[in-house]
Amino acid sequence: MNPTHVEHIGIAVKNLDEAIQLYENIFGLKCYQVEEVPDQKVKTAFFMVGQTKIELLESTSADGPIGKFIEKKGEGIHHIAFAVNGLAARLPYLEKQGIQLIDKQPRKGAEGLNIAFLHPKSTFGVLTELCEKP
Amino acid sequence: MNPTHVEHIGIAVKNLDEAIQLYENIFGLKCYQVEEVPDQKVKTAFFMVGQTKIELLESTSADGPIGKFIEKKGEGIHHIAFAVNGLAARLPYLEKQGIQLIDKQPRKGAEGLNIAFLHPKSTFGVLTELCEKP
Repeated sequence: MNPTHVEHIGIAVKNLDEAIQLYENIFGLKCYQVEEVPDQKVKTAFFMVGQTKIELLESTSADGPIGKFIEKKGEGIHHIAFAVNGLAARLPYLEKQGIQLIDKQPRKGAEGLNIAFLHPKSTFGVLTELCEKP
Repeated sequence: MNPTHVEHIGIAVKNLDEAIQLYENIFGLKCYQVEEVPDQKVKTAFFMVGQTKIELLESTSADGPIGKFIEKKGEGIHHIAFAVNGLAARLPYLEKQGIQLIDKQPRKGAEGLNIAFLHPKSTFGVLTELCEKP
């Protein structure tokens, strides 16, 4: 799938405002956007570090994917997203290689990107997202 | 601390060779180095994706940090490393801001970098590494 770079790293937090304080005031990064993604039941905050975004994720519902993740594993790194080209065509290839797809076709994610998730069962425990600019 | 980019993402795996197959043969990345870091009881494999390295980590001992992590949480993303300048001077500042340091002074890590870890207790569950080229 030849990713060009790490598009973002998703981090599950209980309280977005408190986590933003850490990344802004102590790590010296600038939060350039806060966005709610109702589809994923999350509120997100973005920071740019070189080519890569840090995406903080707070669940807006206990039964959302981030709420469940925190309940099971606690706060922490939730997923890695790679930027790729030709996403739609790559998914059937990955499936043929034995990768379990969460999304069989690209769907819309935060920041208007086309995204698809690969199941961590087939990627050694890493929830892996692929992203492409529309 | 104004990181310039995400230097690497550390991923804990049970079997380095099997994980390398995924990243090389399916994700299309090139493993450019395999290195043992006895101090950390790990064998590591590195892949470059844009500015960022993927660092796969296999424990060489059940009582090493990666062995313990996998026992507790399973395989998956273990830590994020930010590239910073002036690492030694930044650590006392971070401690003053309430960040719990695992390393009070920089030490040598993989690839000859000067590194220091911040405790996930004070970074919302994210084991955070800071790196600087010597």
